[in-house]
Amino acid sequence: MYVRNMLEVAIIGASGYTGGELLRFLHTHGEVEVVAATSRQYADTPVRKVHPHLQDMSLEFTNQSPEDLNVDLVFTATPHGASMSIVPGLVERGIKVVDLSGDYRFDDIHLYEKWYGLKHENPLEAVYGLPEMYRDEIKKANLVANPGCYPTGSILAGIPLVKAGLVDTLIADSKSGVSGAGIKPTSVTHYPNISDNIVPYAVTTHRHLPEIQEKLQKYGDVRVSFTPHLVPAIRGIITTLHSFPNQDITSDEIQKMYHEQYRDEPFVRVLDAGEIPRLSAVRGSNFCHIGCFEIDENGRLVVVSAIDNLVKGASGAAVANMNLMCGFKENMSLESCGLHP
Amino acid sequence: MYVRNMLEVAIIGASGYTGGELLRFLHTHGEVEVVAATSRQYADTPVRKVHPHLQDMSLEFTNQSPEDLNVDLVFTATPHGASMSIVPGLVERGIKVVDLSGDYRFDDIHLYEKWYGLKHENPLEAVYGLPEMYRDEIKKANLVANPGCYPTGSILAGIPLVKAGLVDTLIADSKSGVSGAGIKPTSVTHYPNISDNIVPYAVTTHRHLPEIQEKLQKYGDVRVSFTPHLVPAIRGIITTLHSFPNQDITSDEIQKMYHEQYRDEPFVRVLDAGEIPRLSAVRGSNFCHIGCFEIDENGRLVVVSAIDNLVKGASGAAVANMNLMCGFKENMSLESCGLHP
Amino acid sequence: MYVRNMLEVAIIGASGYTGGELLRFLHTHGEVEVVAATSRQYADTPVRKVHPHLQDMSLEFTNQSPEDLNVDLVFTATPHGASMSIVPGLVERGIKVVDLSGDYRFDDIHLYEKWYGLKHENPLEAVYGLPEMYRDEIKKANLVANPGCYPTGSILAGIPLVKAGLVDTLIADSKSGVSGAGIKPTSVTHYPNISDNIVPYAVTTHRHLPEIQEKLQKYGDVRVSFTPHLVPAIRGIITTLHSFPNQDITSDEIQKMYHEQYRDEPFVRVLDAGEIPRLSAVRGSNFCHIGCFEIDENGRLVVVSAIDNLVKGASGAAVANMNLMCGFKENMSLESCGLHP
Amino acid sequence: MYVRNMLEVAIIGASGYTGGELLRFLHTHGEVEVVAATSRQYADTPVRKVHPHLQDMSLEFTNQSPEDLNVDLVFTATPHGASMSIVPGLVERGIKVVDLSGDYRFDDIHLYEKWYGLKHENPLEAVYGLPEMYRDEIKKANLVANPGCYPTGSILAGIPLVKAGLVDTLIADSKSGVSGAGIKPTSVTHYPNISDNIVPYAVTTHRHLPEIQEKLQKYGDVRVSFTPHLVPAIRGIITTLHSFPNQDITSDEIQKMYHEQYRDEPFVRVLDAGEIPRLSAVRGSNFCHIGCFEIDENGRLVVVSAIDNLVKGASGAAVANMNLMCGFKENMSLESCGLHP
Repeated sequence: MYVRNMLEVAIIGASGYTGGELLRFLHTHGEVEVVAATSRQYADTPVRKVHPHLQDMSLEFTNQSPEDLNVDLVFTATPHGASMSIVPGLVERGIKVVDLSGDYRFDDIHLYEKWYGLKHENPLEAVYGLPEMYRDEIKKANLVANPGCYPTGSILAGIPLVKAGLVDTLIADSKSGVSGAGIKPTSVTHYPNISDNIVPYAVTTHRHLPEIQEKLQKYGDVRVSFTPHLVPAIRGIITTLHSFPNQDITSDEIQKMYHEQYRDEPFVRVLDAGEIPRLSAVRGSNFCHIGCFEIDENGRLVVVSAIDNLVKGASGAAVANMNLMCGFKENMSLESCGLHP
Repeated sequence: MYVRNMLEVAIIGASGYTGGELLRFLHTHGEVEVVAATSRQYADTPVRKVHPHLQDMSLEFTNQSPEDLNVDLVFTATPHGASMSIVPGLVERGIKVVDLSGDYRFDDIHLYEKWYGLKHENPLEAVYGLPEMYRDEIKKANLVANPGCYPTGSILAGIPLVKAGLVDTLIADSKSGVSGAGIKPTSVTHYPNISDNIVPYAVTTHRHLPEIQEKLQKYGDVRVSFTPHLVPAIRGIITTLHSFPNQDITSDEIQKMYHEQYRDEPFVRVLDAGEIPRLSAVRGSNFCHIGCFEIDENGRLVVVSAIDNLVKGASGAAVANMNLMCGFKENMSLESCGLHP
Repeated sequence: MYVRNMLEVAIIGASGYTGGELLRFLHTHGEVEVVAATSRQYADTPVRKVHPHLQDMSLEFTNQSPEDLNVDLVFTATPHGASMSIVPGLVERGIKVVDLSGDYRFDDIHLYEKWYGLKHENPLEAVYGLPEMYRDEIKKANLVANPGCYPTGSILAGIPLVKAGLVDTLIADSKSGVSGAGIKPTSVTHYPNISDNIVPYAVTTHRHLPEIQEKLQKYGDVRVSFTPHLVPAIRGIITTLHSFPNQDITSDEIQKMYHEQYRDEPFVRVLDAGEIPRLSAVRGSNFCHIGCFEIDENGRLVVVSAIDNLVKGASGAAVANMNLMCGFKENMSLESCGLHP
Repeated sequence: MYVRNMLEVAIIGASGYTGGELLRFLHTHGEVEVVAATSRQYADTPVRKVHPHLQDMSLEFTNQSPEDLNVDLVFTATPHGASMSIVPGLVERGIKVVDLSGDYRFDDIHLYEKWYGLKHENPLEAVYGLPEMYRDEIKKANLVANPGCYPTGSILAGIPLVKAGLVDTLIADSKSGVSGAGIKPTSVTHYPNISDNIVPYAVTTHRHLPEIQEKLQKYGDVRVSFTPHLVPAIRGIITTLHSFPNQDITSDEIQKMYHEQYRDEPFVRVLDAGEIPRLSAVRGSNFCHIGCFEIDENGRLVVVSAIDNLVKGASGAAVANMNLMCGFKENMSLESCGLHP
């Protein structure tokens, strides 16, 4: 008799959008079994009543506490502040963790405490889960801090410039679909308020700003300014990165630099100079497209990146991290291209 | 040495939306190789320049004529009128064909000629490619006429009622996303004209009406009235089917009837009575969700179905038909659930 | 010295969408002064903080109780159930009232109690505020019950058919923009849930159904079936009215019937047969466009109407009613055409 | 007998969106009669067939040549390149002209020729039609060059900063609704391509860039970088203006500077520091809202402006210019506030 040894995983906080996306990818993964999906609000409700696309999943949400989860790996899709009280117990018990909150993303705990307005009770060693930065470290990690959605698109667009010492200031003007605001209805996400509108918000104060800056500073000295906008789209982030390179360089040379940086990356595609990334090309997929590379008469360079905030910006990245941590192929269950149109 | 025997297929007219979707499914199919994707307009252009989600496809469009295609199976994603001049030659040469146009959908050639305003030069024996009606016939067919998008959603919603002799008139009030109008920009599909609007069109004269009626009449005598609306959505068709059952029956009894009809179907999901299908639950997938089953004080019954017009309503169905015709598992490459939200 | 005698009005419940629209029309009316706009939630907040388009209004919301309002006319933009406890006191004190809730719309109090699930404590004589039905009565009324949004579009589309005895059953399949659901965020109105979606709801049980039926029955015996859909649009209702005329009649004859019925109406425009009303053509305006009048082979007739749910379907109608009650020109402050595109 | 002396005006190129908006404002102006609206494509067609909101206008499009127009004022809503061959003849005949193209916007003809790629055959003295810059000159002008849509939002947001010498570089990251692309369907404006997408375009090469820079340089030395994005909205432009003030200054001080600059302007509203302009607040209106004024830790300042591209960005501004040129009150027919939601 042949017994397939499946990796057993649990999702804490599985009723939100990132929970739904984790389930979508894990459901068809082949090497993984989701043995628990917790949700206080929906305990004992079939998953498909909350995630209507998962009609064929027989799982029900449970109200288990983290201590009752005996699995190989846990995804904590919990709010910042909540993760830090759950994660250490899991790690202590030898369970691998991919944390989707902001709690373990910072090297500098003071940055976290300042921008999140919280005392961090349980600092732990964690690897920042951007494979394009830390693939080898992720493979050996027990705790991976899954990157924020805006940082993913901004960091990938910024690395080659900072690494080459070409820029000392970056302005990231990002435009995000509304699913980035989560599943909970608010005045901002109320259809009549965001449809036919574009809403700059947290214009100078978004928590993803220090995350972008801390990570890009691994590659060189750089100051980052960041302004996010909510736009009438369900999914996706377009980041328009403005900068002034400090030396003469052409669009094509910059395109080559990017191509070089990402040529072997499974999830990054660098477009030809002048081509603009489109949200539909990455919709529902784990890909990041980077393009444009145009320079104007003032010497301003524009780089544009596109990701799906719920996939490459959250749950797809988390599954890739799981794949790396557990010895699976990095893109397992993540091969799908975008849903265009 | 092991040589995998791949099915070789070609797509004629591959630069439109249905072409893009065919390529998306075939690219990761595993048993199929796309050896030609033709497009007069884009000959010699890489596929990824037209279908930006297919970045990893190295294929280029070609301008080959049908006679030059030496493959096992051809998808003709050509306009009605054009298919009938291409298909017979392919069939004669022993090539299996899935035709996505309207040219071979009708049993009654006069219906075709009346509603399409064309003389049919080349009638051929074809099987109507709705597996829920003709699975066994499709398996043996050389030519399959892929159903229209509206008919797919309306017929699946109507079969159990007509079969049970419960109704003699059906009113299908359908709402379709704009991709159903194709890739060619028109005044109707111009963003400022369809955003924030709902557009009834071809109110009594849509070509899908006789198709719905001819197929449903296989199950009993029924008159169908049909009005489509374009709505500001990219993909998906919601069909609201109004009828007056001719005998006392409850919502639950009707739900059971539907459940019975479709219990073994790989791509149809019948929701609980009172639950309403959602487009996001089927977005990008080959599933059809059917639900509602409510009855009002006048005895009017409402059944609602949801499909993705480009997938279950076109290219996904075509791939399922190929799977059946070629001995693959029916849902091969079509297992994905919808992209929600 | 010349003193302009302005009509003093108050709005109870002025912070919602209908409140905002009332203020928009009254602000530039010329004969009216808004002396109070109440809102418990926003008391002492400037109106412009809640209604950002009203930047030039210096008014602040107040928390006055109805008894403290000493004005000529009050708009009660209060929820059903709340109006009935406020309106009688106002009427008793000789204040004219336009009530935007459902509390006074029904002749048959039992219908109200059945469909709204409430005991009606304070039945009063009220005139149903559809000028196209009751213009003369409205002029003399002290209490006008402003019609529901769906009823306005459905009744205007149905009157000529019922009056001519042409139909005994009407199926109104209506599609409404999201502002019809009000200003309060819910799961249904959360952008990712309604964008790219079409949501049938209250499929057989919407409270506007008995309102439509009671009013149309003034013109003849008719049974109405009604199903509303929420669609991804901010404003507007398209109603697709399906019926089977009981005698031979042409599209043009029907168009003429409608033209005859509404030729002198300031706010109804009957389009040529075959022309389809568009939401943008009435957006922001008090007009109702009616058109289509096509008949299919089964003898089914389709009539389509378009209104702005917040204007002709609510606040514009309320201002027209005020105009009639107070001796102003019916279309005062309501002359604007739609905002297209 | 009393004869009202109406200003007679004509619109050349009246079938586009700006033509429709001109007609909307002129129709109810009170002092103006539109005696001709030309359109080669729609000659002899009633205006209301093309502009469905103008149901009550009896006007038909004509195919008159400019020489046959004997009126007091002409709006040339013609493409750049076409205006320069029409305008001089009109001006010579003593007809006042408001030109909506780019042909007469530049002081420096070389800039025009470089960015528009055209030889300018007929340079004429024209006043740049931004009343906030040139009100007095407009009053005396015979030819007014109506500003571009992006320039209007960017210049108004930039003037106080440049005038105060606070900045030497401005980055304008603008987001425009699709009506800005005009009435002609293209691949970019095809609903499935722009819905759920955000499209940076003409990233460093948009013709409005030199216009913004030339006008702002009237106030001081400044370099402008500009990137427009098309976003899924019908109307409106949000401009996010990034800059690094060269001295210490607070948000409130900047807000006061703006308030001071625009306190007497009929169409500019400066919001409190921290408040973000919304498209719905200006939708359909001639207002420009300016707000935000936040400064981040890197010293980057963000100013945000909102306009309706078809009104303050085109036809509303043109009507205001006509009002000034002809001695009417500047905001005549333009008093309406925005359509929110």
